[in-house]
Amino acid sequence: MRIIESVKEMQEYSEALRNTEHRIAFVPTMGYLHEGHLSLMREGRSRGDCLTISIYVNPTQFGPSEDLSSYPRDFEKDRKLCESVGADVILFPPDREMYPENYQTYVDVEGVTRNLCGLSRPGHFRGVATVCAKLFNIVKPHVSFFGKKDYQQLVTIKRMVKDLNMDMEVVGLPTVREKDGLAMSSRNTYLKPEERESALSLSRSLKKAKQMYDGGERNAARIIEEVTGYIKSFPHTRIDYVQICDTDTMKDMDALKSEAVIALAVRVGKARLIDNYVFGEPLSIP
Amino acid sequence: MRIIESVKEMQEYSEALRNTEHRIAFVPTMGYLHEGHLSLMREGRSRGDCLTISIYVNPTQFGPSEDLSSYPRDFEKDRKLCESVGADVILFPPDREMYPENYQTYVDVEGVTRNLCGLSRPGHFRGVATVCAKLFNIVKPHVSFFGKKDYQQLVTIKRMVKDLNMDMEVVGLPTVREKDGLAMSSRNTYLKPEERESALSLSRSLKKAKQMYDGGERNAARIIEEVTGYIKSFPHTRIDYVQICDTDTMKDMDALKSEAVIALAVRVGKARLIDNYVFGEPLSIP
Repeated sequence: MRIIESVKEMQEYSEALRNTEHRIAFVPTMGYLHEGHLSLMREGRSRGDCLTISIYVNPTQFGPSEDLSSYPRDFEKDRKLCESVGADVILFPPDREMYPENYQTYVDVEGVTRNLCGLSRPGHFRGVATVCAKLFNIVKPHVSFFGKKDYQQLVTIKRMVKDLNMDMEVVGLPTVREKDGLAMSSRNTYLKPEERESALSLSRSLKKAKQMYDGGERNAARIIEEVTGYIKSFPHTRIDYVQICDTDTMKDMDALKSEAVIALAVRVGKARLIDNYVFGEPLSIP
Repeated sequence: MRIIESVKEMQEYSEALRNTEHRIAFVPTMGYLHEGHLSLMREGRSRGDCLTISIYVNPTQFGPSEDLSSYPRDFEKDRKLCESVGADVILFPPDREMYPENYQTYVDVEGVTRNLCGLSRPGHFRGVATVCAKLFNIVKPHVSFFGKKDYQQLVTIKRMVKDLNMDMEVVGLPTVREKDGLAMSSRNTYLKPEERESALSLSRSLKKAKQMYDGGERNAARIIEEVTGYIKSFPHTRIDYVQICDTDTMKDMDALKSEAVIALAVRVGKARLIDNYVFGEPLSIP
């Protein structure tokens, strides 16, 4: 397994692979890898001749008061995990490679980023789209993998790839959960022991939403009210949003007619956690 | 010579060429080709195994009160000109291929687009950067050619390609002029006979600026004053801007220390004409 820090070296490596008809699978990450990332990596391994993982905590997707400096990092552990799934390359670029002096270009996906996390984290998706555009141009993948846990991010990247005619496939894979239902996230490490139970309010409230939907409820406001009340009944929780949106446009829905997702962002202690459920899909939460 | 309207067909064609080690040269245009375009195409012909020309009047780079609908078009003539220089492909996409329903992604190059035409044509460079990002992803060139007549556009594209790590070369080529000095432009067709002489005020004023510079003048304000007065002495002219900028940042300069460009935008009748001169370079104007 090769570790590449240089943009130019990565591009030359990928170009040589493409010129010899190899298929490049790519999993972009911010590191501190968990089972969610590993599921993306295993799928990538099975669908590419070359599997590249990027590990880069992208500063442009963090707001000024967010957790850029405290975001968890453990490259040595990540390296071993990448090796364990048979990755070929880790792209591990320093900031000066990604955003050198006088950097000034940004990719803005408009519609789908304006709701949900786009409201509570201004500039976040601009940073995400920009770094992904850069990483795609550096790694030159045929196929890239993203988790559905970051649902709005997945929709944003799919939209950007389609709109900018990037000639690659974007695959979204199911959220991986702890046994008790908590969605895997590098930010779960911020949870204090007494907050861990409260963090379950997210996944359990999604289960409630699913039960209401399966029972025939199609009124978004009633589902949101139930979910909100449930989460608030847990200590240490502070709701950022509970919304039901069209899965394509990310716009709020009143009645659940077309495909809909319920998306949550909740602060539990100093962790800001997100989770979501696409109505009609399976959901295994105890 | 092949004419391709479909994004997917163009991508497959280019991918097949790249996989067989062909070098793709690309000249993006809005059509109504003139000798300026042809000089780019000839250079592209000599530097690529495959020469692709795109002809697309890009709506997102026109402001609401600009000349999108009246912009001159003559595909049959353009086709013959492309054939005459030995182009392999014309990419000639309809709007629905480039901006289908729900299109919502834009590329914003910040610093270098904020001055000059960025002030008088809000959103113009966003449209230019976006369509070029799309065309680069569709045509997959190794090298692309742009004219220095649109100097700020060239700087913007170079900046985008560098910032977004697009693995290709951007080449700027000298402005091609009519015998009397007028910079070639598709928009020269808007000039009425009585305005044609006034249009010469742009190139001739640049010659004056060069003479002052060659005589030792390094004060930007004095050169601008001279140029402005000269252009105003012609009927039918309305100055949009006369500015002297750093060639790298496109920021105004007071004293001509680092590399500098004098850039003009002048309305002559209903034509908005631009021209520029990089101090220290040759300039052949009668």
